[in-house]
Parts: sequence; C-alpha cells; structure tokens
Amino acid sequence: MADADAPERPLANGQTRVDFQTAPARYRHWKLAIDGEVATLSLDVDEKGALFEGYELKLNSYDLGVDIELADALERLRFEHPQARVVVLRSGKPRVFCAGANIRMLAGASHAHKVNFCKFTNETRNGIEDLSESSGLPTICAINGTAAGGGYELALAADYIMLVDDGSSAVALPELPLLAVLPGTGGLTRVADKRKVRRDHADFFCTTEEGVKGKRALDWRLVDEVVPGSKFENTITARAKEFAAKSRRGAAGAGIALAALTRTFTPGGVDYGSLAVAFDRGGRTATITLRGPAAPPPASAEAMLALGAQFWPLALARELDDAILHIRLNEFDVAAIVFKSSGDPAEVMAYEEFLDANKDHWLTQEIRHLWKRVLKRVDLTSRSLVTLIEPGSCFAGTLAEIVFASDRSYMLAPSLPAAASGGRSGRGHDGDNKPPATVALTAANFASFPMSNGLTRLASRFLADPAALETVKAERGKLLDAARAQQLGIVTFALDDIDWDDEVRVFLEERASFSPDGLTGLEANLRFAGPETMESKIFARLSAWQNWIFQRPNAIGEQGALKRYGTGQKPVFDTRRV
Amino acid sequence: MADADAPERPLANGQTRVDFQTAPARYRHWKLAIDGEVATLSLDVDEKGALFEGYELKLNSYDLGVDIELADALERLRFEHPQARVVVLRSGKPRVFCAGANIRMLAGASHAHKVNFCKFTNETRNGIEDLSESSGLPTICAINGTAAGGGYELALAADYIMLVDDGSSAVALPELPLLAVLPGTGGLTRVADKRKVRRDHADFFCTTEEGVKGKRALDWRLVDEVVPGSKFENTITARAKEFAAKSRRGAAGAGIALAALTRTFTPGGVDYGSLAVAFDRGGRTATITLRGPAAPPPASAEAMLALGAQFWPLALARELDDAILHIRLNEFDVAAIVFKSSGDPAEVMAYEEFLDANKDHWLTQEIRHLWKRVLKRVDLTSRSLVTLIEPGSCFAGTLAEIVFASDRSYMLAPSLPAAASGGRSGRGHDGDNKPPATVALTAANFASFPMSNGLTRLASRFLADPAALETVKAERGKLLDAARAQQLGIVTFALDDIDWDDEVRVFLEERASFSPDGLTGLEANLRFAGPETMESKIFARLSAWQNWIFQRPNAIGEQGALKRYGTGQKPVFDTRRV
Repeated sequence: MADADAPERPLANGQTRVDFQTAPARYRHWKLAIDGEVATLSLDVDEKGALFEGYELKLNSYDLGVDIELADALERLRFEHPQARVVVLRSGKPRVFCAGANIRMLAGASHAHKVNFCKFTNETRNGIEDLSESSGLPTICAINGTAAGGGYELALAADYIMLVDDGSSAVALPELPLLAVLPGTGGLTRVADKRKVRRDHADFFCTTEEGVKGKRALDWRLVDEVVPGSKFENTITARAKEFAAKSRRGAAGAGIALAALTRTFTPGGVDYGSLAVAFDRGGRTATITLRGPAAPPPASAEAMLALGAQFWPLALARELDDAILHIRLNEFDVAAIVFKSSGDPAEVMAYEEFLDANKDHWLTQEIRHLWKRVLKRVDLTSRSLVTLIEPGSCFAGTLAEIVFASDRSYMLAPSLPAAASGGRSGRGHDGDNKPPATVALTAANFASFPMSNGLTRLASRFLADPAALETVKAERGKLLDAARAQQLGIVTFALDDIDWDDEVRVFLEERASFSPDGLTGLEANLRFAGPETMESKIFARLSAWQNWIFQRPNAIGEQGALKRYGTGQKPVFDTRRV
Repeated sequence: MADADAPERPLANGQTRVDFQTAPARYRHWKLAIDGEVATLSLDVDEKGALFEGYELKLNSYDLGVDIELADALERLRFEHPQARVVVLRSGKPRVFCAGANIRMLAGASHAHKVNFCKFTNETRNGIEDLSESSGLPTICAINGTAAGGGYELALAADYIMLVDDGSSAVALPELPLLAVLPGTGGLTRVADKRKVRRDHADFFCTTEEGVKGKRALDWRLVDEVVPGSKFENTITARAKEFAAKSRRGAAGAGIALAALTRTFTPGGVDYGSLAVAFDRGGRTATITLRGPAAPPPASAEAMLALGAQFWPLALARELDDAILHIRLNEFDVAAIVFKSSGDPAEVMAYEEFLDANKDHWLTQEIRHLWKRVLKRVDLTSRSLVTLIEPGSCFAGTLAEIVFASDRSYMLAPSLPAAASGGRSGRGHDGDNKPPATVALTAANFASFPMSNGLTRLASRFLADPAALETVKAERGKLLDAARAQQLGIVTFALDDIDWDDEVRVFLEERASFSPDGLTGLEANLRFAGPETMESKIFARLSAWQNWIFQRPNAIGEQGALKRYGTGQKPVFDTRRV
C-alpha cells in the first residue's frame, strides 16, 4: 500500500460496523415529537454517545452516529407521520444550537471515513430540502445560541431560519480560520446559491471565527428573521402555524410503521429479504442481487397501506439504501458493485402499473421519492457500478434505473436467435432454462427519478441525441431483448455466452487493478453530464475541494490546523498558494 | 512548513523565472503559418527544449513552455492575422499527433506547479474555443497518428476533429490506467458535455490505454470524421476551405503587431508601463497598480490601428495578463493580490466611449475579448483578491471590473462630506490633494465581460436582487463616491481615514495567516455563484478532483503510478475507495 493514510478508527462499544438502522426509541441525540401538524426535531447530543472511540460530543457537535438518527427521523416523518405539515428544527440544549461536526472526530478519522461522512451528511441535508419540495413538509430552524460550522449548514437546509437576538448568538462558518478546512456540508454552496449572499459578504462571513449576529445577519441574508429572546418561543409557534397553514401536505389517515429491516450478516455478505449482498473480497466486488416481488401487487391502496413496510417496492428501496450505505462506510476495499436481479419482469411491471394507478396516493408518492433519493445515493457512490443483465433477471421500470445508474452494463444475448426461442425461453449461459435477459421501461423511467443534475438518467444518457430518447420512449412496456437493447443504446454491451464470462471477468479485474482514487475522480466527472444544480454543485465543486483540503498537510499534517486544534500550538503552514 | 510538498524544480538553461512572453521567431515547438485565409498551427516539439531540467519532451509531449508558445500564437492569430478564417491544428511530426503532458515533468513537479500548469493549459484550450465563438475563427484538428491524453484534449478544443484511418492511429485518454490521474485539461468535461459521449462509452474510452480508433471513434462521437491515409491531406484542405467559407471573419486591412512588452524586473517588483507590480514579501502581498491613460483616446479607428499595441486598453490588458501569470507561476508565496489604480476616471471613461463608438471594428472587439479572457484569468487566480479604491484612483468602466472580480473591496471615504468638498476635490488619507475616490460604471460592465459562469460580475453579485442590479445600471456614467458606492452595494466597505489603515492592514495580515489551501478552496466556491457552464465545470468539478488526485499517494507516492511510470515496477495502491 502506497504511503499509508490514517487507519480506520475503532468503533465505540465494541461495535464491528457502522449501522444505519435505528429507531426513535433508541435515539441518543435527537428527539422527534409530533404535536398535531407540528413536528419538532430537537438536537440534544449525548456527549458520551460518540460512534467511535476517542472523543466526546461536546456542545451539540455531531458525528456520523448523530446524523444517522437525523436521517432516520426524516424517513419517519415521511412515512409514519403524513399528517405533519411543518418541522421545527431546534436545539434541546440552552444557549447553544450546534457546534457542527466534532473536530476531534475529524482529526482522527481516516480520509475515507471523513469523505463518506461528509457525503452522508450532505445527502441528509438534501433530504431536508426534498422533504419540503417533494413532500410539502417545510422546515423552520430556530437558532437559540450559536450555530457554527455544520450547525449553520444544518440550518441552511431549512426553508426559514430564525436567530435569537441576544447580543451573542450568531451564525458562523469558522472552518477556514479555525481548522483550515471548508464547510463541507453544502455551506458554501448554499450561502452562494440558495441564500444568494453577496460574494464579498460571504468572504467576510466565512473568514470570521465568531460569525455574524443580529441585524447584519439579517441584512446579509444569512438568516430570515432575528427575534428578541423574550419573544423567541412565541415566534417559533407563530411561524410554525404560518408554514403549516401554507403546506399542501396532510393525509387523511395514519402513516405506516417503518419496521426494522430483517438482515442476516454472514462473513460472505448480507441477506435482506428482497435483496442480497455477496462479497468477493479477493476480487474486491460486492454483488447486489435485487429480487423481484414474491406476490402480485395488492388489490387496492388500502391493501398497500395494510402491507406497510412489507410492500415490495418500499421494502426493496429501504434495503438497497441500507446495503449501499453499508458498503460505503464498512467495506472500503470494494472496488466495484455488481448489480444483478432475479424475478419475473412482468411481475415488476405489474407493480409499476399499480404505482401509476395510485399515483396520487401519499404513500406511492413517498415510495417514488424514496427511490429517487436511493438512486441518487447510488449515483454518488464512489465505487465502479456495473449491471449484469442475465437470463432470469427483472430489470424493468424502477429497477431498470439501476442499469442507467451504472458506469457500464453487460447484457447476455441468447445463443439462439430470440425469434427461434419464442421470445420467452432459451438457453441461459449456464445451461438452465431461465427466460432470456430483457430490459423493460415504463413511464417512471422518463420522469420519476431525476439525478442531481435535474435530468432523468435516460435524458442524461441521450444528451447528444434527443431523437434517440424519443425512440426509446416509444418502447415503453415492451420486454426488450439484448439485440434490441443494444440497438436502442440502453445497455453498453450485449454479449453471447461465448464471450460473457471472459469479458465480465476482465472488466472486474481491470477495475480492481486501477487506482481507487483515479476511478473516484473519473466517475464523478463522467456520471453527471449536462446541467448543474445546487445539489450537483455541492457534490462536485464543494466536495471535491473539501476532499483535496482533507488531504493537504496544512490541514491534516502533524503541524496542520486540524491536528493542532485545541492543543494551544498554532498550526504551521506551507505558504505556497496552489 | 507542514510536511513538505515537492520543492520547485530548477528551470532549464539557468532561467530564473517562467516567462510567458515569446514570439514566433523564438518558438521551439510550434509553427504558425498563414496561407491566405488558412492558418496552420503545427506542433513539432523540440525534445531538448524543456522548460525545466530533468526530462525530455519525447513524442510531441508538452510542458508549460510548449503551451506558452501556443497561447502566444493564438493571440497573434487574433491581432496580427485578422484575415485568417480557419485554423488547422496539426502535428509537424509523422505518425504522431501529441502524447499529452510530459509524464516525467508531472512526476517531478511541485503540486503548485502541476495545478497552475493545468490551469494555464485549460485557459489556453478555452481560448481556442473563444477564438471560434467570439472571433469567428474556427479550428479544425487533423490527427495523423495517436492523440493521447493532453493530445486528445487539445483536439477536443477544436470545432472539428479528423482522425486518419490507418488501422493504428487512435484517440485516447489513458491517464487513469497508465498514471492514476485524470485527464486534467478539460478532457472529461468535453467528452461528457461538449461531445456528449454516452457515459458508458466514455467510461470504456477513459479506461482503455490504447484508446479508440476508426469507425468506433466516429460512432461514439469521439471524432467527427475518419479519413483514409491516402486522402488525408486533400481532406484537410477541403475541410479548411469549407470552414473558411462559413466563417464570418475577415478584416479588410492588415493586423497590428504585438510588440514585446517592455518590462523592468527589480527585486521588489515589475514595471510594465501602464501597470506596476510591487511585492511585499514579508506581508505576502503583491500590489498591482493599474495606470490610467497618459493621453486622450485616438481620433479615429485608423489612429487606433496606427497606435497598435501601444493603444492604452490593449497595452494594459496584455500587461495585466502577464503580471497575473508571473505571480501565479513564479511567486507562489503571494497570499493576496492588492489592486490599486491611478489616473483620471474621466479619461478612462473617454476610452470607454471611444471603444463603444467603434464597437463594430475588429480591433476594438478583439480588445474587449482579450479583457474578457484576462478578467476570467483574474477570477481563476488562486490568491485572495482585494481592491483598494483610494483618492486619485480610476476604477471606471473596464477597470471597475477589477473591483467586482475581487473577493473584497475597500473604498476610502472623504473625511469631509463630499458635498462640502465640491465633489471633485477633498483631502486624501495622506493629506494630499488627490480627488476623492470614485467608481464609475459603463455599459461594458453590464454586458462585455461574462465570467466563466456565463453571467457578468455584477449579475453574479446581485443574484439575490435583480432590482438592485437595475438600480446600479441606472447609475452608468456617474462618478460614484464612497457613500453611494456602498449604498449601491458595489463595494464591500467604505471607510474613512481613521479606520482605513488598520482595517486594510488587519485584513491583509489575516489573509496571510490563513491556510493557503483553505483559501483556495473557499474562494473557488464563493466566486462563482449561479449557473455552471462547461467552462466553469472544467475549473470546478474537474480541476478540483484532479487537484485531489495530484495529492494522493496512489498517484504521487513513492510507489504511486506517476512516480513508477516507466520504471518497470508496477504501482502499489491503497485499495480503499474514498
């Protein structure tokens, strides 16, 4: 291994992996309270509840463990509390809002952890905005003390920011002056592009340790309202009422319970029910097999509600999300994720039809929004992504998005012409009798799942040729065989079984042989053609610069600012501007 | 200094600084030939002509010195050859086009040099595109062998790419598989966003050492035409004729000669005539003082042509460009560039009026396009930028763009109210009798100088408030004093002389105390609010990822791919995906 990076740090309490599953009853840092239309999310960090050994979470600072609870709470708001019409985001501690990401945690974390921690917190903040935009559930943020660094970045994800005007409470992004790093959770992008703070004001703000308070914070657009301490609680209540009144949300009935996922961890992988992960650690691959539905869709929306978290599209989305996060944070050595599927594409299509038929139901909407976010998480996963479309697979509708999210796809063509095999049977490459590989598209592929660039995966794919996109669109509802899929341009290579094994093996070996960093940078550039959005800017411009700085000796060297913070010793910098 | 980066390498032939000034008679690597409407730029690199010691430029590979000649040739095409209507970009060597950036050069360069080398080559390629878009002079690229890495990236800047179809010539981006770095000169962005290559094809292409040739290169949109060897020369001639016929360019008369800049280097700075640079090496600042015109504008376009390179707006733009590049590549320790100006704003405004009155003349157009590019170069300079607007300064029209390109501006307000001083006189902070500081805007500030995001600096500045932009626009032509300028929001701080010295000193000391890397990342995020373009994507997403990779041990460590290339030893990678 070339010039070792910091090793992975031991998890606290003898845990062996970062677990993204939690539930409100187990939260140590957040409280989720529902009072009629108003949901309140309170941050009250347990200092002793750090995810890793070696630091305490002082001053409502956070680590990945804290953010996992927040992400869980947001999912529960979506699915368990459809009546909520506004979220109040606040601190559970007096006179402090949130001090941001814990500095000791950052100083001791491996580069891979730091980068993936920031990616997850960014996805969670984007999720807060998606909750408002897609689900009609706005967030108002009440800052009762100082919101510094990641604390202010959390506030920036809200629709409305209130700051108490007490002569000391402030908003601040002190990362650069204090730690020689950037606010890496979207702060710079949201200051520039969401709040549209004038660039010289932003420059001043981001280089001022103590931040900005009171009227200047308001004048400079850093907050939406400053409120005297004596009126703070009443104003929060009033604003919550106003936002709730404007919300288009509010289902008639109750939500559904997000039961804990059923997972079986073995040395070789994880089985989830609708999905399985198998590791080939020598080959540095993780194979994720998505399983089609075991039963036809329910007869009605009521029956779907009764199924709740067991409803196949929801179960699969939650399992895929957990599997991707597990690989990201616990299996750093995986070079490539291989996607496969098994099932009957016609049954998957039946579910797509069910979702379309009930497209105005809050639950089907939430399920599609969840898939949208999970697929974005796949796009942003820094592992090579490949889909193998084999006989017996069911890449149809929503599942076909996995094909388009992949860096490449390989599709096995029948050895005999499809016509001769009757179109539904034929020899698989292992001599079994599975039906030949097909891909099938539905309306969802052309509208429901925008990437972070704002375009669908198919629109991004056919950026050069909108007519080709229209041709593909006309094929909705058909089971497309390998020859047709290649002709349409929706798979990379269609191969017969003479070439299949060698081509796939060589590809995966090649991927494992390349520089992991080079691949990360390459894929981050090639996956997102077309327009940029605030979201894509966060993951491209901001994250890339932050990753760079997270490697620089001025931050992480023995004399660097992140290492020396709190030691009383000043950092020593290489003064060359790069 | 924290964990030292590679030191700066010695320049070849005992040179003491990288010099961006050259002329066709001194070119060692490029030939510029003009034949009627057809300009031919031929790359024929002198292996022994490297800029630094320690490597040879084999196979038409390049270093910064080669690219300085290309950038010079492009300026000469603009100003000296207004009759040219098409550029043929080709190799002067048989069976090889260009092997890209020299690997030994990259392996031994300091991080600061690598990053600034890539920035300059990117600016030059963007300049090729600007030549087509703004000056109506398209480039066709004739690839007679293999165009690899930066060689293909150079081709990608052209409007039309021809590849000889001889069974071996190919286009390739082998950086990742060979060197564990990215194609860093816009290649990934242009493949995805200019040529709109399908992402799976792009993935295949960028991970294949030998590249893609013949029909596949055409089918995948990597080139525009493949041509049999026997027809190659005739086809180049034919295509040149076609592009020339469509060009809107073609001035009636001759061009103007770009005479060598007159520069006086001293230990403390550089004097150029219309501009001076003064270094405060202890304070880590470079002060650039822009001097207003010494004479009124010429009486006519003919008189402007007669002045040629001595015409003040042209002279100043060329000098500013050279000064910025000198600081970037030779003065890495400069933390902040302080812009000042001296002169009569009314005289500057008179030049603006002259340019407007002659706005259809090819030379005024080229001058404004040059300013556009130079100002973009300022935007992309990774040093803190501050403008000090003091009595006797002349930040008017084009020069006012410097104020808006800065991270902050400070403007000295008169000690007495402006009204009492008659508006044109008053005490300066040093007790002299200079006229009080003013800023003045012209139509050019609202249209002529888009940033890389496609917006003017004022539009970017007032992204939050288009009405404020309109208010500012209504003030065109007026000399705006400090109070009014601050009220309008076009300067950051207006200060009286009681606060001036301390505020400015503290700001500059603070800037020098911060992490140079942190500032680079911060400024790269805050300077470019609003939309993204292919150009801004190159400098944000692509450059930031490349900079990250240029720091990673997998590339630059002793066992990394860049260091081990050509040694016969395979690189050893840290396999963690980040």
